[in-house]
Amino acid sequence: KPLTIGLIPADGIGREVIPAARQVLESLRSDVMPAKLNFVNLDAGFEYFQKHGVALPEETLAALKGDCDGALFGAVSSPSHKVAGYSSPIVGLRKQMDLYANVRPVISGAAATASGERRAIDMLIIRENTECLYIKEEELHEGPDGKYAIAKRRISEFASRRAGEMAFSMALQRDAMRQQLPASERTWTGRPKVTIVHKSNVLSVTDGLWRETVRSVYESNPEYKARVDVEEQLVDSMVYRMFREPEAFDVVVAPNMYGDIISDGAAALVGSLGLVPSANVGDNFVVGEPVHGSAPDIAGRNIANPIAAIRSAAMLLESTGYGSAALAIYRAVDKVLAEGQIKTPDLGGKATTTEVTEAVCKLL
Amino acid sequence: KPLTIGLIPADGIGREVIPAARQVLESLRSDVMPAKLNFVNLDAGFEYFQKHGVALPEETLAALKGDCDGALFGAVSSPSHKVAGYSSPIVGLRKQMDLYANVRPVISGAAATASGERRAIDMLIIRENTECLYIKEEELHEGPDGKYAIAKRRISEFASRRAGEMAFSMALQRDAMRQQLPASERTWTGRPKVTIVHKSNVLSVTDGLWRETVRSVYESNPEYKARVDVEEQLVDSMVYRMFREPEAFDVVVAPNMYGDIISDGAAALVGSLGLVPSANVGDNFVVGEPVHGSAPDIAGRNIANPIAAIRSAAMLLESTGYGSAALAIYRAVDKVLAEGQIKTPDLGGKATTTEVTEAVCKLL
Ligand SMILES: CC(C)[C@H](C(=O)O)[C@@H](O)C(=O)O
Ligand SMILES: CC(C)[C@H](C(=O)O)[C@@H](O)C(=O)O
Repeated sequence: KPLTIGLIPADGIGREVIPAARQVLESLRSDVMPAKLNFVNLDAGFEYFQKHGVALPEETLAALKGDCDGALFGAVSSPSHKVAGYSSPIVGLRKQMDLYANVRPVISGAAATASGERRAIDMLIIRENTECLYIKEEELHEGPDGKYAIAKRRISEFASRRAGEMAFSMALQRDAMRQQLPASERTWTGRPKVTIVHKSNVLSVTDGLWRETVRSVYESNPEYKARVDVEEQLVDSMVYRMFREPEAFDVVVAPNMYGDIISDGAAALVGSLGLVPSANVGDNFVVGEPVHGSAPDIAGRNIANPIAAIRSAAMLLESTGYGSAALAIYRAVDKVLAEGQIKTPDLGGKATTTEVTEAVCKLL
Repeated sequence: KPLTIGLIPADGIGREVIPAARQVLESLRSDVMPAKLNFVNLDAGFEYFQKHGVALPEETLAALKGDCDGALFGAVSSPSHKVAGYSSPIVGLRKQMDLYANVRPVISGAAATASGERRAIDMLIIRENTECLYIKEEELHEGPDGKYAIAKRRISEFASRRAGEMAFSMALQRDAMRQQLPASERTWTGRPKVTIVHKSNVLSVTDGLWRETVRSVYESNPEYKARVDVEEQLVDSMVYRMFREPEAFDVVVAPNMYGDIISDGAAALVGSLGLVPSANVGDNFVVGEPVHGSAPDIAGRNIANPIAAIRSAAMLLESTGYGSAALAIYRAVDKVLAEGQIKTPDLGGKATTTEVTEAVCKLL
């Protein structure tokens, strides 16, 4: 049965890194990737909005739902001023497809070596992906002292529980995978741990509900309680601690906006945003998405780092049941990074997007 | 005319670092500090709440308003679970006294040298201090899928304008101060710059209003336009960039919650939260406050770093018109840090709170 992947490059360097990821997928040998791959090119983005008045066309959603087994999303440009009717297509996509968790692995490995750092970072951020301030319910008012605006931040038991479940089950999954590694290759050597991020000292109701719900996922599952450690961290201290001792984190689970900020911060620790992939995960669909943005300053110059997109493609394969194909890609990428010869400018190199992509393909 | 300072140690290490700051203030020689200093001890905090059912007593507010020219606040503990009726006293204080900007200078200098880093960080974070999610308007609801909670995030033209004005005028002030330094001692050598932090790609209404209002402060003032550069940064990229190139920032202005997160992150860059002071500034009152928390894990052991509190005391003097006294304290602290002999455990040393405080006092 073929695997059909929707490709949504969207804006800026999205148009360079998504084709790169496709090329890597097409280079997989049939012994690791037994299924035939079909690709469907789909529209979305700010540029598309400027031409057609809509950022996430119905046809794209229909094709994803009707024809695709998963998708890859590139990156989207932000308008430099308020534009009536525009709404971020990636935020819309997450909501429309109920992709309720954004899974962001941040791993140092080769990149850390390359940049001269020695910290062993192997962190998995689970970002709640459907609510918080991202519900975009905002209103503008006129008051006695001028305009004011109110945005609503929504936290629900339902969404918090799903994110919490994902975090604890991933903590166990990671532990199982680690057990298969020789001890010398394990970055995280302790018991699996989940860090719950919140700011309940200020947001006692919303973040209070978040924290209690995620905790109750833990408390009500004997296996989690027996095998996983849990800790809490206020979001401000989390950013502080993440930079002081990034090796202290295993799985981190956070409401949407905190998760957005933390994952960009974590990317800084491993050398470049151009390395960090993500998967927007729902019960029946996954959209791989590099954590980086559309980088208009370097778009169109064939120097964007394709690795985040390539790793996102591997995450997509992993969650559609093609673990060996995913592993082959992860290994090839790690090897290119470890050799340190062929790297894009964000990592201090001079290679092009094409060269990095071809180096990965050659190893498959 | 004497200067009367309210002291609110509150919880945990607040009770160690506020007395340390007082000791430093009392050691100032009369040629740099011509006014007599009076101190008034005031209650607040989570421990106080546990005994008396109120975290920020009316008497404290009355004393601040009636008797004091400024105040120092220590730190407040967060309850480890939801406690009915409790509300953070520092958030209340900022609101009650209309301390609309939280000014947080993050400077590397001696600390960077001590920790082996070489980055020259000299950043001033202006955090809007009265609204955003800190208005604490939250509601819990029962829905078909279980509980959900809504928090309101408020952004007003009025508050954004005040924060913006503070940012641009501080950018000019910092520039004027730099001009007095020999060129070799200037960390920031370019034109003054203000970085506006927001997330208007998601929060187009609230952060849109923030961004437009701060920009309009700039656009409507010919002096700002002629002498200050302005740039914008999405909050997630801000955290990323801050860690990749912290030397690229001069003044940073942010809505309340982003400012909270960014300033803890920036503290990680200069070696320790124990070094970073802040001033909660209103039109008629200033409350100095170390950026660190109450650190229950090390409280009561005389090992908390008093420098953030001491520098906060200096910021208080600076804004009440005693610039030379403030300068004397800054210099003494810098000298102790540069010598690197007497430092608390957070900086890798073995000195006590008392020893660091006395080392500073001796240099005054
Ligand atoms: C583009 C933007 C809406 C998006 C987000 O904030 O979720 C991006 O920063 C991300 O992390 O995927
Ligand atoms: C204690 C807490 C309410 C406070 C805040 O979030 O403002 C603290 O983190 C700070 O930065 O002063």
